[in-house]
Amino acid sequence: MNTIDIITRKRNGEALSRNEIEYIIMGYTAGEIPDYQMAAFLMAVFFKGMNKEETVELTQIMKNSGDVVDLSRIRGIKVDKHSTGGVGDKTTLIAGPIAAACGVPIAKMSGRGLGFTGGTVDKLESIPGFRTLMAEEEFINQVNEKGIAVIGQTGQIAPADKKIYALRDVTGTVENLSLITSSIMSKKLAAGSDAILLDVKCGSGAFMKTQDEAETLASLMVEIGHAAGKETMALITDMSQPLGHSVGNSLEVEEAVEVLKNQGEEDITKISVNLAGLMIFLGKKASSRDEGISMARKALENGSALEKFRDFVEGQGGNGNIIDDTSLLPHSNFSVALKAWDNGYVSEIDAMQAGLASQHTGAGRMTKEDRIDLSAGIRFHRKVGDKVNKGDIICTVFCNDCEKAQKALDEIKKAVRIEGNRLEIPSLIKSEVYFDEKDRCIVHRIDHDS
Amino acid sequence: MNTIDIITRKRNGEALSRNEIEYIIMGYTAGEIPDYQMAAFLMAVFFKGMNKEETVELTQIMKNSGDVVDLSRIRGIKVDKHSTGGVGDKTTLIAGPIAAACGVPIAKMSGRGLGFTGGTVDKLESIPGFRTLMAEEEFINQVNEKGIAVIGQTGQIAPADKKIYALRDVTGTVENLSLITSSIMSKKLAAGSDAILLDVKCGSGAFMKTQDEAETLASLMVEIGHAAGKETMALITDMSQPLGHSVGNSLEVEEAVEVLKNQGEEDITKISVNLAGLMIFLGKKASSRDEGISMARKALENGSALEKFRDFVEGQGGNGNIIDDTSLLPHSNFSVALKAWDNGYVSEIDAMQAGLASQHTGAGRMTKEDRIDLSAGIRFHRKVGDKVNKGDIICTVFCNDCEKAQKALDEIKKAVRIEGNRLEIPSLIKSEVYFDEKDRCIVHRIDHDS
Repeated sequence: MNTIDIITRKRNGEALSRNEIEYIIMGYTAGEIPDYQMAAFLMAVFFKGMNKEETVELTQIMKNSGDVVDLSRIRGIKVDKHSTGGVGDKTTLIAGPIAAACGVPIAKMSGRGLGFTGGTVDKLESIPGFRTLMAEEEFINQVNEKGIAVIGQTGQIAPADKKIYALRDVTGTVENLSLITSSIMSKKLAAGSDAILLDVKCGSGAFMKTQDEAETLASLMVEIGHAAGKETMALITDMSQPLGHSVGNSLEVEEAVEVLKNQGEEDITKISVNLAGLMIFLGKKASSRDEGISMARKALENGSALEKFRDFVEGQGGNGNIIDDTSLLPHSNFSVALKAWDNGYVSEIDAMQAGLASQHTGAGRMTKEDRIDLSAGIRFHRKVGDKVNKGDIICTVFCNDCEKAQKALDEIKKAVRIEGNRLEIPSLIKSEVYFDEKDRCIVHRIDHDS
Repeated sequence: MNTIDIITRKRNGEALSRNEIEYIIMGYTAGEIPDYQMAAFLMAVFFKGMNKEETVELTQIMKNSGDVVDLSRIRGIKVDKHSTGGVGDKTTLIAGPIAAACGVPIAKMSGRGLGFTGGTVDKLESIPGFRTLMAEEEFINQVNEKGIAVIGQTGQIAPADKKIYALRDVTGTVENLSLITSSIMSKKLAAGSDAILLDVKCGSGAFMKTQDEAETLASLMVEIGHAAGKETMALITDMSQPLGHSVGNSLEVEEAVEVLKNQGEEDITKISVNLAGLMIFLGKKASSRDEGISMARKALENGSALEKFRDFVEGQGGNGNIIDDTSLLPHSNFSVALKAWDNGYVSEIDAMQAGLASQHTGAGRMTKEDRIDLSAGIRFHRKVGDKVNKGDIICTVFCNDCEKAQKALDEIKKAVRIEGNRLEIPSLIKSEVYFDEKDRCIVHRIDHDS
């Protein structure tokens, strides 16, 4: 076997064997195959793709390149949830406690990453006292006792993916289905849960712009999870405007608390209940998806999810009083309002552009070394479809630096459109992807939001 | 401008501007753009190609990356000849002296390179005393006085191409028309001649396997030369079996002398006369291609080409007596014969396979550091279409190492097929490519060898 042959075979559109994929991936991870050959290989994959079998192998090889977390000492069916990334997506903070309140053990290792805001771990760190670093023993005990724990990634999860992703990022080879899928799924499979729920975003603020693209990605991920012996499902959800009313870190924790009090915005509440419902179903605490969803709704209504959140926060050293008094969360010094420049209806809040604005407030990292401003971000007072009169506040930018606030305001202005007529609001939950009892991968389009 | 954008634009099939091409090529040559981004870029070019304008720009940029030879002190129209590479191709050693005998100044800088045999410079070095290193002054004087000089490449000719070619070689990105064309033509344009004749080989031993492919490559090269303001023509010639009867270094010099004595094989004589004829036409010493070809034939018949060869060799310090006594050339210690295993006709001598066998004798370099054995090689006593009886010698392998001889014999055996019926011999000169008086690039297929 040699690297040039493998590159050339892929370039010519041939399918590679497990051994060939292992040779190039592990050789690269070990530093034996140089960056330039891997870059040529990745570009060949970009053009010629990988079939399902190759993608399964690639995922397994990357998963096995590092530590595989052992959660066997946690009782019950552990369910992991992963979002492909959106703006204002605080669903883990809500669906996790709901599912845990319904008896599903949630043992989540979460990343920080670059982006429009911090990751789930950064958001949780805005709660005074909250510890996201825990020894394995303590982590497992908390899940067994409180039903839920969320900590930062420890150990070496899929180092092959880490190295390859960094190269893809600088060689124009990010946007390939097999590479995206194997990157996400290798880390999910290494994270040790028994079942996986994927929230695949689609729309202007997501990587997948159309429902078709999102369904294709979701199907491949579900198939890869299934092939690895883990029950896997996906929801395709809207990411054309930010989810809920807040984008940031402490701002999103505050909103999560609102939702857990059953006083949240309709969109974020609905997505969280649906995700939690499917987690309950995957955790075999409900016999159908519908039963799971109605259990989730009940946990919001009867306050058990909110109490689970308090247990979870306090279990990890955080101040549970933030639930009753959100002023205990960090707040920024400056706020600037974006006011409507016309009468009409909000017809667009471009999620990508809103995310960039959030990054400008300091709520997200642009480089790995950046420090996040946990109190910064944006709160929307109006969403798509809402009526506005000239001078109404559409959103407020929170920031600790006057210059950054101005820049963020300029950016967020570009995201918003006001029109004379009210446009139809895009449906929130678009499709479900799952394996049916006959072992077929089904994409079920949901025509109307229920 | 940034590298990732340029890679991504090419990956998406967009045409790049001169500035973008310059940015990536010169940035890479200067070591500012890393190998891995160049590798991804080259693979994107492999898949999406470059249009004619991009290829023209790429060629110019690579040409200007190093020295451009100034031949202005040589009187007359300097004509360069380039072969895309074949097995047993010693035409420069023949067509050069013929054209020079007809008054065309030949000032050639030639490479060594890797391959089945050495390059023209290596072959000439098998002549005792021959110097391929000359100061510029001496080189120019020899051309002005003797009409022809051939030396090794000096200075930095197209260093961008050199660096990029090395990367293409290890990243599976050699086989792209624009990359091949710009690589060849950047060096030819930097070599300083006024007109360029290209011998584009096609067949099993050539890079281009079919006539169509060879014509496409030839047309692009002729267009690039034309766009750079140099009169450029191409012949498409057969490379399905080795050219002439010998493959090696001193063996090829010996055969060149035979041809110059007008006692050579039909195929090599014919190609050499045609190439020389076109060089004479390009050098404006003949008013038509046909007149050039008949002048070339005359120069062979009247001995003036042979005398020009003697002048040339002696001018560069070589022993001119090799012309009268080829035993003065180096000879190898071993020879092994391949004998016909059956009665019939030779139906194939696969050129590529014959080239590999030649490399095994030590006549060619496998790595840049290899030393060439100038006396090693293969001589064919039979060619395609010849009748053989069982036991007849088809070819002789010359070698200085018994083990290498055995290996070369095994390889050459795989190249030869004998069949009961005589097959048609492939036509030797297949097409001519040139710009007509209306400035159109014409591909003229030659139906029958004349």
